[in-house]
Amino acid sequence: MGLLEDTIAKINPLDKDAMAQAVAHINSLTMPPWALGRILDLAVELAGMTRDITLPVARKEIVLMAGDHGIVAEGVCPQPSAITTQMVYNFTQGGAGINVLATVAGAHVTVVDMGVASDLSELVRAGLILDHKVAYGTKNFAQGAAMSREDAIRALEYGIATALELADSVDVFGTGEMGIGNTSPSSAIVTVLAGETDPAPYVGRGAGLAVERLAHKAAVIRRGIELNRPDKNDGIDVLAKVGGFEIGGIAGLILGAASLHKPVVVDGFISSAGALIAAVLSPTARDYMILAHGSAEPGHMKMAELLGKKPMLDLSMRLGEGTGAALSMNLLDAASAIMNKMATFESAGVETEGLK
Amino acid sequence: MGLLEDTIAKINPLDKDAMAQAVAHINSLTMPPWALGRILDLAVELAGMTRDITLPVARKEIVLMAGDHGIVAEGVCPQPSAITTQMVYNFTQGGAGINVLATVAGAHVTVVDMGVASDLSELVRAGLILDHKVAYGTKNFAQGAAMSREDAIRALEYGIATALELADSVDVFGTGEMGIGNTSPSSAIVTVLAGETDPAPYVGRGAGLAVERLAHKAAVIRRGIELNRPDKNDGIDVLAKVGGFEIGGIAGLILGAASLHKPVVVDGFISSAGALIAAVLSPTARDYMILAHGSAEPGHMKMAELLGKKPMLDLSMRLGEGTGAALSMNLLDAASAIMNKMATFESAGVETEGLK
Repeated sequence: MGLLEDTIAKINPLDKDAMAQAVAHINSLTMPPWALGRILDLAVELAGMTRDITLPVARKEIVLMAGDHGIVAEGVCPQPSAITTQMVYNFTQGGAGINVLATVAGAHVTVVDMGVASDLSELVRAGLILDHKVAYGTKNFAQGAAMSREDAIRALEYGIATALELADSVDVFGTGEMGIGNTSPSSAIVTVLAGETDPAPYVGRGAGLAVERLAHKAAVIRRGIELNRPDKNDGIDVLAKVGGFEIGGIAGLILGAASLHKPVVVDGFISSAGALIAAVLSPTARDYMILAHGSAEPGHMKMAELLGKKPMLDLSMRLGEGTGAALSMNLLDAASAIMNKMATFESAGVETEGLK
Repeated sequence: MGLLEDTIAKINPLDKDAMAQAVAHINSLTMPPWALGRILDLAVELAGMTRDITLPVARKEIVLMAGDHGIVAEGVCPQPSAITTQMVYNFTQGGAGINVLATVAGAHVTVVDMGVASDLSELVRAGLILDHKVAYGTKNFAQGAAMSREDAIRALEYGIATALELADSVDVFGTGEMGIGNTSPSSAIVTVLAGETDPAPYVGRGAGLAVERLAHKAAVIRRGIELNRPDKNDGIDVLAKVGGFEIGGIAGLILGAASLHKPVVVDGFISSAGALIAAVLSPTARDYMILAHGSAEPGHMKMAELLGKKPMLDLSMRLGEGTGAALSMNLLDAASAIMNKMATFESAGVETEGLK
């Protein structure tokens, strides 16, 4: 059995006992019933994931998967692929949005080269990024498969391996990505997994595509889907035909984290495409996903619906990199602190009259 | 001129130059246009408030105003007023939700007795709470005015005084409250200020009122409005007739903070009632308000609409105490960090092709 099958086999549902214990503890705390709403829902889910009602979430890791995309040859995004490389350098120098917001969150950032179309060995040798490069960018999925089935499995297993490598020093993972062109495969993935043929409702401006180019972008993605005919019941097939290396890495990271009973905070549109692939491979893996925020990309709401999840934040963000995951980690800290530090009615001498 | 008029006279609009500088700086940072959405909107607003594009927000203070309400005699809430006092003790012992979430936010909590119906002098002498008690709870506004006009002014000026006392060590204020029965005056205030007569759409379960008692609660509030006929153009009159001491304190705190060019993070339903009173007294004061979260109380959306503000978070919370304000302060830290620590396209050597 390979790493992928082995990992999927280890993914268990949430621990119902821990969740029931969490609910009982919450109901003893000095506040009206469920008065902290979704923070308490989150606390219960985290208890179920971690099997621990103290909710260990202190050690946070944003895993930023980077890759390039052959589809950019079709004129679907205004930026050149070179910006992926430039941004990877920016990440290693601490100057990008994710560096700043990870610091605010108390999170570490690990950058992984999953398939950037340039030689990053200088950064690998310096220990600044992890090398899981599958290839120098995907192929143009408007003209054939984005990658071979073997490479899709490789991307997934590199993602799993990343989770396993980091696991000993991580309580919570967050996903992030960088890859010029990667909204196109993400739009393709949500279209296919929704069982639809027209990507137009799920195509957005990405990093700033002109509104008048949206129809062209949708037509290119539609052509890619029609040409490749991905099998929506086969996550590897969807990833191979219309996906991306960083999207596969994210899917693998999620599967790895779920197999370890560790929560994964899923960032925005591209990360959710990875989450969708993970969910096809293991529906149970969804139990370990926390959707960080609702992206400004129009296809993200559909992704959330397919995942059966409601995003925690809604701040019209569309940066990616894991910035939404980093921002929402504060809510996990809040949930954990409530479980550990709040007084009970009994300890505080507060009456429960009218509260039960 | 009294402290109230003097404070209102000092409230200036946001600084447009600082806002323009903030926008220009943001557009130089290594991300697609406005890719961090509302975090960037917030950064610009904070620059306008503080006149400083480095956005000083490190020193955070939650001011928790406590008061009791005569309206509880009408059976509008299941808990006895004694719980207000018990919770004030809980706050001073660090065991309440606000203590926990303020710690997560890096915020200090100051508890103010604005009108609790018990003798809290023991806590005042111990330096654990501030004493701005107007009276031992309001009168029952279903049978007459909640307080005299003089006491309403006193509550507002105590709130202003609190802001002035704390200002030297505070960059950002957050509002909070505790007061059994205080959803009723808050529902009355939003009804009156919306220019409506039926409070029913704005009446909710507060800290857990049974659904079948909602119609009674709405009828009591309606009677209070019809009996008192508050003048919606006179914030003092509305506060006096159907308000509360802690609601007046919150309104005053907001006016004081605005006069000092300091941002105020407004918590949920009751805090927004205070914000509405402040906005009647000084429409410009709204410029300094940040709505923390959308409360689960049904009247809160109308309050946000009247204030012309969109809440930052939406987590189905209904605890009050300032817990939503504390949770959302992380977003202010994020906005400030982005302004201070992110690389520019030029400094990071990232192309701007396709991004402008």
